[in-house]
Amino acid sequence: MRAEQGTHLAGPVLIVGAGLLGASIGLGLRARGLDVVLSDSSPSTEAVARDIGAGRLYSDVKVAGEGLSPELVVVATPPDVTARVIAEALLTHPDAVVVDICSVKEAILRELAGMPDVAGHLSRYVGTHPMAGREKSGPVAARAELFIGAPWVLCAHAGSAPDAVLRAESLAVDLGAVPARMTAEEHDGAVALISHLPQVVSSLVASRLQDSPVQALALAGNGLRDVTRIAASDPRLWVQILSANAGRLVDILYGVREDLNRLITTLEDPMAGGARLDMAQLMTEGNAGQARVPGKHGTPPDSFARLTVLVDDVPGQIAKLLTEIGHTDINVEDFRLEHSPGRQVGLAELSVLPGRRQELTESLTQRGWKVVQ
Amino acid sequence: MRAEQGTHLAGPVLIVGAGLLGASIGLGLRARGLDVVLSDSSPSTEAVARDIGAGRLYSDVKVAGEGLSPELVVVATPPDVTARVIAEALLTHPDAVVVDICSVKEAILRELAGMPDVAGHLSRYVGTHPMAGREKSGPVAARAELFIGAPWVLCAHAGSAPDAVLRAESLAVDLGAVPARMTAEEHDGAVALISHLPQVVSSLVASRLQDSPVQALALAGNGLRDVTRIAASDPRLWVQILSANAGRLVDILYGVREDLNRLITTLEDPMAGGARLDMAQLMTEGNAGQARVPGKHGTPPDSFARLTVLVDDVPGQIAKLLTEIGHTDINVEDFRLEHSPGRQVGLAELSVLPGRRQELTESLTQRGWKVVQ
Repeated sequence: MRAEQGTHLAGPVLIVGAGLLGASIGLGLRARGLDVVLSDSSPSTEAVARDIGAGRLYSDVKVAGEGLSPELVVVATPPDVTARVIAEALLTHPDAVVVDICSVKEAILRELAGMPDVAGHLSRYVGTHPMAGREKSGPVAARAELFIGAPWVLCAHAGSAPDAVLRAESLAVDLGAVPARMTAEEHDGAVALISHLPQVVSSLVASRLQDSPVQALALAGNGLRDVTRIAASDPRLWVQILSANAGRLVDILYGVREDLNRLITTLEDPMAGGARLDMAQLMTEGNAGQARVPGKHGTPPDSFARLTVLVDDVPGQIAKLLTEIGHTDINVEDFRLEHSPGRQVGLAELSVLPGRRQELTESLTQRGWKVVQ
Repeated sequence: MRAEQGTHLAGPVLIVGAGLLGASIGLGLRARGLDVVLSDSSPSTEAVARDIGAGRLYSDVKVAGEGLSPELVVVATPPDVTARVIAEALLTHPDAVVVDICSVKEAILRELAGMPDVAGHLSRYVGTHPMAGREKSGPVAARAELFIGAPWVLCAHAGSAPDAVLRAESLAVDLGAVPARMTAEEHDGAVALISHLPQVVSSLVASRLQDSPVQALALAGNGLRDVTRIAASDPRLWVQILSANAGRLVDILYGVREDLNRLITTLEDPMAGGARLDMAQLMTEGNAGQARVPGKHGTPPDSFARLTVLVDDVPGQIAKLLTEIGHTDINVEDFRLEHSPGRQVGLAELSVLPGRRQELTESLTQRGWKVVQ
């Protein structure tokens, strides 16, 4: 990756909360040459964040008697304390724009509205939410590139000053993210559906596996693996997220429960009249919803063509395959290697622009590769 | 892949049902030099299967007046008609072992037990289930390699003759699968949990997306994509599978409903005493279940170490990366390229044996690659 030339922000940027996201923001801004100051309620967390190069410490700045007038304060604390930390930042740094990166937005605004002493300062506050994260947490897992290409939602409230919104947008752009403006209401509705719903359902499925026989799990395929992957997420963080967006999520879960009850009824008596039709209906509705999920590039599903190539599972084979694809000048949009347990062979699934699929298939076949799909 | 030398089966093998699985079995056995004869109730399906090289047609064999005495009959029809087709095969081919590959096993046995005319023939029947499939269906999607490395469950019943079980096992081995013996009861319990549960839950989640705003879906990440991927499966086939294993699946869904109700209660009043503890408990149970899901090789989770490398999104970069990894003589166990929407950069996630991770990181860094994790 080429180094960024110049930034929209000038700095210094104060980051409060040096976990995965706070430390990643610090790393990203430092990599672009900005002065970053960090603080965290945990001394060991902030020390790790400093040591990996995410910024210097606010406590050191204060000990040195240095005056700090941040251009921007980024509140990256857990959801429960976010509103309080925003309020403190607005009062402590009267010239700074303050943003938070909490994954719920209305609850934060509601809390702030209930604090009379910050009412006159809210024009400098903009709620934001970068749609990036990892299953791991803490500054050790941080990386400067975490936000590259990810959507970064900006939720200006009615009283946000236009230049405060621009400064929040600068943060997203400087970190390589793609800004998306929406209201807090629109945001919270969207994340309830696309993030909180799959999270809790993944946990509900994974929970059923707790006492299952090992030989049953040994038969598991990619279906189970994919559905349960995010069930590995941190319960402490998620309890705060779910609590803060409880109303929107529970409305969606009423719909899930209604469908689940329909399904249970059909399964309790699968020979009953209409049972199979109901089952088919539920599956067909799933087809329709799934077809609306965008692909990896944020593009519509099926906008890339796939082909599968058989590769021997020895060092250098995949490299050889991709070197030869490189010679064709066809860009591989996505690549996934599927191993076969117990066999020294893998299936490499390649995605390319649909117009290049046939050409690539022919070229690889000529070079002796086995294209199986 | 090197061609297989020799087979356990001698042939001919008759395959009844020339859809995705039947045609894939035909292709796999033909590739190993066995005589395969196909039939399907749909003339166009069996014609396609023949044209792709999955075998010659039973109807042609009969027209030619050729006597056919198959060593093995593979019943690969939809679940609803499987027991009837097994019975016909047992009566028509008195020297053949008959297997089916239906994804439920007890319901088939029960149906067969209710047919007095086949009672004397059931020693030649063995129920089996290859744990392989695709989201696509029909013979066009068939491939000879579909079963390589996949578990293939063999469910001998109390009356199965030992040499019938061996012949069924030969089919699995000749197709490169890994045989696993269990009872029909164990099998049906296992697939209810690891296949039917994730399928219906994926459909329930995807169903919620039907009327969602496009801008909400545009924020979707891998979490939603992974949870809803299998919701694209064929409703007609799944209605038959779910009906045939309804009792086992519904017992699991009662547990899901109980947990869902607990979750809904906590979300209806997230400030109530104990609500957060209940939420945390549900998430923690999900962690515990997820940790039991085996990895891609059928190995325990986390048995490979991962590292992420930043690559420019231009032709040849991934090949260059893998070529240089090839020079290190470290085998890449798994490889996944994550694109960033709107940015010309990708994150290549590599899995290697844990003992080689540090070495590979250093080697790549020395060669100028940016290893971010």
